[in-house]
Amino acid sequence: MAVYTEVSDDALEEFINAYDVGEVVSAKGIAEGVENTNFILHTTRDTYILTLYEKRVAEEDLPFFLGLMEHLAERGIHCPLPIHGRDGKALRRLCGRPAALISYLEGMWPRKPQPFHCAGVGEALARFHLAGQDFPMTRENNLSVAGWRPLFDSCDGRADEVHPGLGKILRDELDFLEAIWPAELPRGVCHADMFQDNVFFIGKQLSGIIDFYFACTDVLAYDLAICLNAWCFERDRSFNVTKARLMLDAYNKIRPLSEAEMNALPLFARGSAIRFLLTRLYDWLNHPPGAFVQPKDPLEYLAYLNFHRAVTSPADYGLG
Amino acid sequence: MAVYTEVSDDALEEFINAYDVGEVVSAKGIAEGVENTNFILHTTRDTYILTLYEKRVAEEDLPFFLGLMEHLAERGIHCPLPIHGRDGKALRRLCGRPAALISYLEGMWPRKPQPFHCAGVGEALARFHLAGQDFPMTRENNLSVAGWRPLFDSCDGRADEVHPGLGKILRDELDFLEAIWPAELPRGVCHADMFQDNVFFIGKQLSGIIDFYFACTDVLAYDLAICLNAWCFERDRSFNVTKARLMLDAYNKIRPLSEAEMNALPLFARGSAIRFLLTRLYDWLNHPPGAFVQPKDPLEYLAYLNFHRAVTSPADYGLG
Repeated sequence: MAVYTEVSDDALEEFINAYDVGEVVSAKGIAEGVENTNFILHTTRDTYILTLYEKRVAEEDLPFFLGLMEHLAERGIHCPLPIHGRDGKALRRLCGRPAALISYLEGMWPRKPQPFHCAGVGEALARFHLAGQDFPMTRENNLSVAGWRPLFDSCDGRADEVHPGLGKILRDELDFLEAIWPAELPRGVCHADMFQDNVFFIGKQLSGIIDFYFACTDVLAYDLAICLNAWCFERDRSFNVTKARLMLDAYNKIRPLSEAEMNALPLFARGSAIRFLLTRLYDWLNHPPGAFVQPKDPLEYLAYLNFHRAVTSPADYGLG
Repeated sequence: MAVYTEVSDDALEEFINAYDVGEVVSAKGIAEGVENTNFILHTTRDTYILTLYEKRVAEEDLPFFLGLMEHLAERGIHCPLPIHGRDGKALRRLCGRPAALISYLEGMWPRKPQPFHCAGVGEALARFHLAGQDFPMTRENNLSVAGWRPLFDSCDGRADEVHPGLGKILRDELDFLEAIWPAELPRGVCHADMFQDNVFFIGKQLSGIIDFYFACTDVLAYDLAICLNAWCFERDRSFNVTKARLMLDAYNKIRPLSEAEMNALPLFARGSAIRFLLTRLYDWLNHPPGAFVQPKDPLEYLAYLNFHRAVTSPADYGLG
C-alpha cells in the first residue's frame, strides 16, 4: 500500500555495495503490501525487490522466512530467492530496519480468479508442502486454534457492533473448534496466507508465490482450507464448487490427502474462516479513523463460515 | 504516493493489446507521485510506465503534455516517450480514466542534492528550453502571476493561522510583484516543477526528467528561478550560493541569459517562492484531517522569499 520508510541514495548505495549485484540504476517504492516497505530495484545486472521489514514482522522470525524461501527455491518452487551479500549474509539493516534483497518474480496476481487459477494454486500448494518437508526450522502458528480465543477476547465484547449476534456466533464456534480440532494430522511448513495477491501468473501458468511472512509449521490440510476460502468463493459470497474441485484434485495429484485429512477439511475450512474473520474483526474495530488503508470486511468470512457449517461431507467441496 | 485506481488483469490485457509491446509479465503500482496512478510494467519486450490520469490533471491538457514529451525526446532530451498504439494513438482510456503507456527511464532522484546535481539541472533545463522553442502547442501557466491572487483569496483570510502576519506579507508581496512582473522577457515551454523527485541521475550523470504535468508556456528565466528555489537551499533553509552558481553557469553555457533576464532573476525567485508558498498554504489549510499525505510546510517558502527579498543583485546568486 505504501512506502513506510524513505531510503536516502547514500544509504541505498552503501547497502547495495554489500552485494555483488552491479550498480543501482533505479529504485521505486511499490504501492502493494501493507506489512513492509518494498522497492523495485533495477541494477546494471538484474531486477530485485528490496524489502525493509516494518514493525508488524517480528525480527526474530526473519531467519525462518528467508531460510524457507531459499530452501523452497532450491527445490524448484517458484518463490523469491534471498540474495546473499559478499559476507554471505542475506539479512542486514537499512535505515534502522532489518532489510533483505530478494530476486524479482515476474507475473501478475489474478484480480478475477478463474477455475484454472484454482487448479494452479492447488498444485503449487502441494508442491510447496512436499518441498517444505525437510526444512529444518519451525515456527509456531500464532494464528491457529490456540491463538483465536485471545484474539476474540481482545475484541473486547465489541463484535456485535459489526453484526448483531456475532459475539455469540464466534464464542460458540470457538468452543466447538477448540474441542474437536484435529491437530494430529500431518504437519509441515504452511504458507498460511496464499491469497490472490500472493500468487503470480503469466497467462495460465503459475509463475510465483510471494509473501512468506505468515509462513509457519502447522497442519497441512489446514493450509489447503485457507486456500479454499481465499480462492473458491465468488464476489457474491457463493461457493464455486468447480473451483474447489479443481483445486483439491490438483493438490491430490501431487500430495494425495489421506481420508482423515479429507474428512477434516470442513472443520479446517471453518477454522480458517474464523481465523480471518477474527483478524479482520480486530482490524475493523481498531483502525484509526481516516486511515488510508480501508480494513477488509469481516462479514465476508462470516458468510464463508456459514457455508462450511452446512457442509456435511468432503463431497460438498467436489471431492471423491 | 499511492495507487488510486485498481486495474483488473482483463482490462490491463485489453489495454496493452492496443500496443505492439509484447505481453505483460508484471505490473506493480508505484508509491511515488501524488497526482496520478502509476504502474511499472514489465512486458516480454521492455519496461514501461503505465499512467492513469486522476482528476487533478485536466484531460484537455494531456495532448500538450504527451506531445511535449515526444517533441523533447525526439530532440535528445532524456524524458519519457509516450508509446503509440497500433492505431497511432498515445492517449487512450483505462478504467474510465485517460491513460498512457510511456517509456521507463532509469535513474534515481537525489534525496540529498549535491552541487554537481545543481549543475546537471542547470544544463538540462537550458537544453529543455532550447528544445522546446519549436514546440507548436501552448498552455497557459495558471500558476503564474495572474493565478496567485485568486489562490491567495481562496485561502480565505486564514494565512495567519499558519504564521502570524503571513496574510499581510503575502498581500504586500502580491501587490509588488503584480505591479513589476517582467512578463516581456523570452518565453517558451517551461517544465515549471523541476523538483528533486522529477530529475533522475545515474551516478553523477543526469539520466532523465519526468513529470511534465505542470509544463506550460511562460517566461524561461522564471522556470530557472523555480529550480533555484527547489535545489539551492539547504535543509536548514540557508541558501547555498555554490549550488546556485553551478546551476546558473551550466544554464548560461547552453542558453546564455540576457542581461535583462539576469536582472530579473531575483524577482522571478520571489515570484516562484510565492507560487509554492501559496499552493502549499492552500493544501495545508485544506487537507482532510488524518489524510495519508502529509502536506508540505508552506513556511519553507516564506524563508526562501525572505532570502530573495534581501537580494540586491544577481551577484548574490553567484552570477557575473
